[in-house]
Amino acid sequence: MYNALRGQKVLSNLRKNSLRQCLLSDPYAIYYLCGRWIFPGERFLALIIKEDDKPVLVLNELFRFEEEIGVSKVYYKDGQELTSLLRPLLNENEALGVDKNLPARYLLPLIDAKLASAFVNASWAVDDARALKDEEEKEKMRRASLVNDQAMERFTKLVKEGITETEIADQMLGIYKELGASGYSFEPIVAFGKNAADPHHMPDDTKLMKGDVVLYDVGCVVDEYCSDMTRTFFFLEEPGEEARRIYELVRNANESAEAFCAPGRKIADIDKTARDIIAEGGYGKDFTHRLGHFIGIETHEAGDVSQANPNTAAAGNTFSIEPGIYSLEQGVGVRIEDLVLITEDGVEVLNHYPHDIQIIG
Amino acid sequence: MYNALRGQKVLSNLRKNSLRQCLLSDPYAIYYLCGRWIFPGERFLALIIKEDDKPVLVLNELFRFEEEIGVSKVYYKDGQELTSLLRPLLNENEALGVDKNLPARYLLPLIDAKLASAFVNASWAVDDARALKDEEEKEKMRRASLVNDQAMERFTKLVKEGITETEIADQMLGIYKELGASGYSFEPIVAFGKNAADPHHMPDDTKLMKGDVVLYDVGCVVDEYCSDMTRTFFFLEEPGEEARRIYELVRNANESAEAFCAPGRKIADIDKTARDIIAEGGYGKDFTHRLGHFIGIETHEAGDVSQANPNTAAAGNTFSIEPGIYSLEQGVGVRIEDLVLITEDGVEVLNHYPHDIQIIG
Repeated sequence: MYNALRGQKVLSNLRKNSLRQCLLSDPYAIYYLCGRWIFPGERFLALIIKEDDKPVLVLNELFRFEEEIGVSKVYYKDGQELTSLLRPLLNENEALGVDKNLPARYLLPLIDAKLASAFVNASWAVDDARALKDEEEKEKMRRASLVNDQAMERFTKLVKEGITETEIADQMLGIYKELGASGYSFEPIVAFGKNAADPHHMPDDTKLMKGDVVLYDVGCVVDEYCSDMTRTFFFLEEPGEEARRIYELVRNANESAEAFCAPGRKIADIDKTARDIIAEGGYGKDFTHRLGHFIGIETHEAGDVSQANPNTAAAGNTFSIEPGIYSLEQGVGVRIEDLVLITEDGVEVLNHYPHDIQIIG
Repeated sequence: MYNALRGQKVLSNLRKNSLRQCLLSDPYAIYYLCGRWIFPGERFLALIIKEDDKPVLVLNELFRFEEEIGVSKVYYKDGQELTSLLRPLLNENEALGVDKNLPARYLLPLIDAKLASAFVNASWAVDDARALKDEEEKEKMRRASLVNDQAMERFTKLVKEGITETEIADQMLGIYKELGASGYSFEPIVAFGKNAADPHHMPDDTKLMKGDVVLYDVGCVVDEYCSDMTRTFFFLEEPGEEARRIYELVRNANESAEAFCAPGRKIADIDKTARDIIAEGGYGKDFTHRLGHFIGIETHEAGDVSQANPNTAAAGNTFSIEPGIYSLEQGVGVRIEDLVLITEDGVEVLNHYPHDIQIIG
């Protein structure tokens, strides 16, 4: 069902840039506003939102549906010329905001036919709205992370000497589904031993051996919203002295950055809080990525938690806090990641699985 | 290495539309012309081709490479403004052909900065070149289909009573790799019994039972070129009378359409050859899709073999011939698919696995 409040947020954002109409083509933006998934592949799909008008969904008749969702529907057939279909739906005397990914094959005919007075990338108007989760979305983010917490507990039981990363990863989807998730939010990362020192390692045939770290970076989708969490365990054996120091540095970076989160804080300073702790511990060069990313309907949404982000955190933001140290010299990789929700007066950490050093197996 | 002959074909196609420069962003188009895969994700990537100039590859420094491939390389950094980088590379007094999928976020700044006198979708210039395989490509298409023939033989040995579609599909990648393929050209379709009556069925936990049809629609990539073949077998038991009639209709449609293929034939008539045979056999409404699609570096390339295609076949075209009958009433689905190469004087069928009714198990 078209969510008028979200639509108003988008229109209000557009007005900041003197825009009063936009044409959205991203299926995620359309799901966010209409609550309905339409994946048209290469075919044209658009939601047109204008001031004071009912939204219009333009879609190929192959994707016809009868349900009333609070928007007008305009269908076209394969081969039909689109500009004459779209002309009456747009105000040609005003600028039009378009989706940043609208392909040239659709955009150029709109421009050539002068269906608007100017054409402007306006995806940010939806991105900015999506970055501020409403109550329904917050509840879905909590539920997705709750399932992820429960799944992590189950994943710690999968280890045994000689099992491969792939053999563990292959069991995760079933566990997620048992717990009520619809699927992965991304392909799980399972990394043993030195593999954990590669932050983008994908599961392979590496066998688990006593003394290895076991890094799980995993997430699922519950009711269309994504979770994402990382924990690093030790298999059968207490970590050595330096591995323990690395773990505690990462844990301290994670917890300090999370505690620092609050509305009004600069995003770059949240990143810096974690980064400084790791740098002071002597591992600055081994924390090789941004601290985190925004998340919601998509695992990676617009907005990253890094030095390059000039914005401040706002109530309703949900993002990951995932510091890591990847030391090939020490043969150790540790990452600890939670999702956080910025609240009116501080922060709610959405993951509750503990951060303590845990020996599994 | 930049393939100057292919580049000349693209430029020659552009000239038909009075274009003398183009900016390509599709990684497949760039591979076709440069022999190098670059998948930049969301980052800008372009190959600029102009009359009388060395081609220029514009890419993010994250994708830097030292190898000399016959093009100039221009690198940019994340966050760098692109229009001033591109301005000296383009002729602002001439129209520019752009990739049909160039996203609005890259196209709009080029238009706003007036980097060319007009902007035109020019992907067809590459698509038309790619549709005419050169000798090197023909040889690669033959090899990919040869591996697919060998794999099909192996796949017929995988059946046993009670095995699931997924359990068979899961073994296919390994077999392809043993035979020298780098991977699938698409996720294999394995369909038992009534599932074969759904042309888009994906493997599930259906168990194989005596008397089922077994439909394999499978393909692999060899040396970057794709194969795609379908065979329909019968498990342990001769088909019943109507199933046999359906099979022979599909076989006749396939072989008649293949025999009809030749340079100068209307593509629509190739489709019609198969379609008429199935319609005359009383199953016209159960052949629910186009006869085939063009294929090469991608499994689905521009150009389909259907009533809607106004073109004629030309030497160097490679496409699939894949008639099918999907009869839920009879509980039978049969599809027989080969790839063909249009030659100077006729056709070469790239698949050699037989069409005869085969009882397996």
